[in-house]
Formats: sequence, C-alpha cells, structure tokens
Amino acid sequence: MGKVYLIGAGPGDPELLTVKAARILASADIVLHDALVTQEILELASPQARTIDVGKRCGQKLLTQDEINAYLIHASTVAGIVVRLKSGDPLIFGRAGEEIEALQNAGVEFEIVPGITSALAAAAAARVSLTDRRFASQVLFTTAHRKGGEMALDWTSAITPNTTVVVYMPGAAYAGLADALIQGGLDPQTPCVAVSCAARKSQQMRWTDIAGLRTLSGIAAPALLIVGRVARSDAETITADLWKQLRATAVQDEQHIA
Amino acid sequence: MGKVYLIGAGPGDPELLTVKAARILASADIVLHDALVTQEILELASPQARTIDVGKRCGQKLLTQDEINAYLIHASTVAGIVVRLKSGDPLIFGRAGEEIEALQNAGVEFEIVPGITSALAAAAAARVSLTDRRFASQVLFTTAHRKGGEMALDWTSAITPNTTVVVYMPGAAYAGLADALIQGGLDPQTPCVAVSCAARKSQQMRWTDIAGLRTLSGIAAPALLIVGRVARSDAETITADLWKQLRATAVQDEQHIA
Repeated sequence: MGKVYLIGAGPGDPELLTVKAARILASADIVLHDALVTQEILELASPQARTIDVGKRCGQKLLTQDEINAYLIHASTVAGIVVRLKSGDPLIFGRAGEEIEALQNAGVEFEIVPGITSALAAAAAARVSLTDRRFASQVLFTTAHRKGGEMALDWTSAITPNTTVVVYMPGAAYAGLADALIQGGLDPQTPCVAVSCAARKSQQMRWTDIAGLRTLSGIAAPALLIVGRVARSDAETITADLWKQLRATAVQDEQHIA
Repeated sequence: MGKVYLIGAGPGDPELLTVKAARILASADIVLHDALVTQEILELASPQARTIDVGKRCGQKLLTQDEINAYLIHASTVAGIVVRLKSGDPLIFGRAGEEIEALQNAGVEFEIVPGITSALAAAAAARVSLTDRRFASQVLFTTAHRKGGEMALDWTSAITPNTTVVVYMPGAAYAGLADALIQGGLDPQTPCVAVSCAARKSQQMRWTDIAGLRTLSGIAAPALLIVGRVARSDAETITADLWKQLRATAVQDEQHIA
C-alpha cells in the first residue's frame, strides 16, 4: 500500500513550494493536480511520474470529486507515492475535506503538506501586512458566491473596521462585489488592492477603494482582493489628514492591545 | 546598498520553509530572527552570517520595534543580504507593518517572502480543512487579547456558524476564551482542536468543544485553536472509538514527525 500526500503547490512560483513539497514531488509515482498548478511546478515531479490533470477548466470538470476520491484510493494500491497537488494551500478553499474523508474511510495512509495560500502571496507582493496591529486585529479569508443572481458574502453587517477581508476568487463582477462589501457594513472609502496572478511573471496589482471597485475590470484570474485599512500603503490618494487619523487610531489600538 | 528580505520561517520544521526562503537564508550576511524561529532553521543560514535574536522572551523585549527598524536600515548599508526571519508568515500577526514602513521611508530595497502561517500547519496536522465547503464558507484568523482583565475577541455577536475561527496565541486561559467565544455567538458544542507546537517534534493535539475548553490546560506554547464545524473530526458525536482512533492517528503523526 502506498501513501497519499495532499500537497499545497503555493501560488505558482516553484520557489514558493516548501522544501518538503519539492522533495516529495521529486519522488512521486503518480501526481494528480488541479488546473491552476503551473507547468514549472509540474516539471519538478519525477520524470517517471504519471501526471494527471483533474482540474476544472472553464467550469468543465475533467473528473468529478467522487472520481478523484476513488482514483486517489485506487492509486494508493498500485503506487508507492501518490501526490495530490493543489494550488495554494490544500485546506484553504482547496476542497480537501472530501478527499481527507474518503482516504480516512478507506484506511489509506496519507499526510497533508501545507502550502503558501494565495492571500499570503498576494499580501507579500503588495507589501501589505494583513494584520498590521495599527490598523487591524484580524483577517477573514472569504469568497464571493452568487445568490439569486446577486453577489453575496457570508457575513452579517457586523464586520468590524479592524478586520482585513481577503476575497478569494472574486470573479469578474467587481461592481457586485462592491455592493456586497458595502452592504456588509464596510465604508466605501475602505482601501483595497486586487492582485492578479500573485508570484507569477504575469502578476498585476490594482490599488483602489471599495467605491472604485465599481469601475474595475481587466483583472486576469486567478485573482484575489485584499480589503481593509491595511491596504492603504502605497496608495497615491492618502492625504495627510487620513494619515493623521490612521496614526491616532493606531496609537489607541496599541494601547488597547498593550 | 544591500537588500532586506522579510522572510516567513514557517512553523518550525525546516522542511516547511519555502525553497526560496532556504536559498536566501543560505546566502545571508546578517539574520535577525524572532525567538520562536527554531535552531534547526537557523542552522540553514550561511555559516558566515551574523545571527541576532531580536525576539521577546517571557514578555521581555531584547530590542524594541523601533530599534529593530533602525537596525534593519543600518544593516542594509553594511551588508549585501539582510534576512529578517519571522516565525510563520511575516504578514499574519508578524508585526511586519512597521518594518515595511520604515524600510520604505528609508528607501531601502526589500522583498517579502511568504511562509507557512501556523494556522495552515496546525490544520494540516489535525487534518482539518479550514474551509470545508460542507461546513464552512470562510475562515477568520484572530487573536485574543485582554480587555479590563477579561479575554476579548474583536468581533460582534454576529459571526456566522459557517465561519471557521482560528485563534492565534490563545494563551493559557482557555476558560476565558470559551466565554469570549460563546459571547461572540458560537454554540458551546462547536467542536475545536488545540494544536500545540504544530509541525515540531513536540506537536500535540487536543480535540474538544467550546464547553470543554473550560477544563483544558497544559497546552504548551506556541499553540493555536481551531474552532468550527470543520473541526468536528468526522462525527457530530465523538464516540470513545473515534477518540481512540484519533489518538492513534495523532500518535502516528507524532512518531512520523519525530
């Protein structure tokens, strides 16, 4: 019986794999990967490895989740090292839950190797400290979904201004997302930055605020949106007054935390 | 002029460094690190590197944040590669905000290299998909602080049951934390798992629910608490059998890591 490794491939740059992920990948017999895993990373797999793309493309699934689960269990009976490679971290919007359960129920030996989730890569690229104690006390990783045709976020109107919100897979409808964020209780002037293809050669960033999202377009997927007072840095629009105000709040926060 | 790298050291296992972090560390001239960065990771630094511990120990700062900022700027004028090594990811509860601002204002060239934040390492160890779509739609990384002697969390009573909450640095007062979580609107029966020293040899896990936190003790720092339906570990009602099985898996994991 082989062993299955659920591995986070990180944002796409092969150098942002963990040392452990690179080591296991190099000795893999079978690699099942999502569509977002880059070619450069797949090239790190053992040349003997059988490489299978199980990802969705344009909404069309190559394999269903049940088929992937079944294949992982099957693969563990015919190969020594089976790698299930997921973009980012497997446990953040990676749909690893069902695979973990299937492997557990089948009694297959498995291990999870974490990866750099897109929020961390995007924040590093944008140089935004997601929990900068002067402006934020926590960070929420969420994703937008459609609810009766409208963009919806799963929070009430009570999100605090000290919460940084990271929206995974924001889609192309930024105007709808702006509405959802404002409806969620955030100020339209809250700064944000959209990061496209973080840590890839095609990386792009767009600094704006929630109101400005209404006219945002042309952000190539995979993308991610960082929303919150922490995203103010580098923003050309920051006035001396806003700075003063931010500093004052920051001092209060620090005293509060201390 | 040298370049400063703000690098995430991950949870402690040197194999959970990124390939990029390991490469830069091996060629560093000066390394400033926090107390939580493990000796095994520091040994990956170039033997020629000057290594400086700037961390807090038992609440006592070796250097203030302003001194660290000033030293980073100074170091960039006397060395080629300056590494600021932070446990986990620099942008999640890593206090990188002030350092980024200081480097930016001083015109020092710098780059941020993300790391595996503790939540991801703890979730991997506990095999908990933080955003398992069957039970959660989002994940909040937060931390507890004291407010007038009581444990406080920075959210309103409106957190949704579909939100996984990860509490960084929960401290030792789990009873107070249980109160804060219940006051925050969560059901006392919400499952949780405390992970101590994730991805280290001394890793330990304790499965319970919010009510059970009241009697939880002996969790060595650094620790982290995952709260939410995703932490249910395969069952609404944890039977003795499941407990036994979970313990066995945990022991295997521990042996495997050792």
